[in-house]
Amino acid sequence: MSNSWLDKVSWTADGLVPVIVQESGTGKVLMFAFMNREALKLTIETGHAVYWSRSRNKLWRKGEESGHVQQVHEIRLDCDQDALLLTVEQVGGIACHTGRHNCFFQKLENDDWVIDQPVLKNPQDIYGHE
Amino acid sequence: MSNSWLDKVSWTADGLVPVIVQESGTGKVLMFAFMNREALKLTIETGHAVYWSRSRNKLWRKGEESGHVQQVHEIRLDCDQDALLLTVEQVGGIACHTGRHNCFFQKLENDDWVIDQPVLKNPQDIYGHE
Repeated sequence: MSNSWLDKVSWTADGLVPVIVQESGTGKVLMFAFMNREALKLTIETGHAVYWSRSRNKLWRKGEESGHVQQVHEIRLDCDQDALLLTVEQVGGIACHTGRHNCFFQKLENDDWVIDQPVLKNPQDIYGHE
Repeated sequence: MSNSWLDKVSWTADGLVPVIVQESGTGKVLMFAFMNREALKLTIETGHAVYWSRSRNKLWRKGEESGHVQQVHEIRLDCDQDALLLTVEQVGGIACHTGRHNCFFQKLENDDWVIDQPVLKNPQDIYGHE
């Protein structure tokens, strides 16, 4: 199978591409992440979003621990081929590791970032603890 | 005036932050860009989106040539403070330099990127020519 569609992506020097993740139906932007080639291939093969974790420096199978997987409906590439837009169904309704629906819960108001979205589930209950 | 809200953003080593731009009302993701501190400050001061052009290595006042400015409704920061989400009204209805409504007009279908959005205005007519 040809990988020319992978080659069309303009990968950074680190071999990554930024990924915007949008919720199917609501249109809400859930999160922002990165993929490398392997993550993008795995995403397409499995139908579930797989990212590259820059902090842990390894593949990040979204929802592997929490069960909050993302079922991918659509993958789009932008005009200069250096950003992806995923449309996903967010299983469990929680995309953010803080236990919120999405990661963009801080809104700029009068020179300050104000949290305006509730924690839906305690992160300790999402990820488990000893 | 304190700039502590600017300091809260986790800027890259290059002094940038990635910016997702979403259309008010439709929820469509229009484009993906970067800002530096000055661009973000100018965006807030003017109410119109100002980015940092990495290719031209200078401030990019969106719509300066085309008239397709973006009126900013809302600015959000994500959980780890390293990505912004702007909600904007896209004047002229064209965000992409190709003359399309938005930049994510290539959809992955059967291992190929397929263009599924029309050019609304010829780029030569947007930017002028001799």
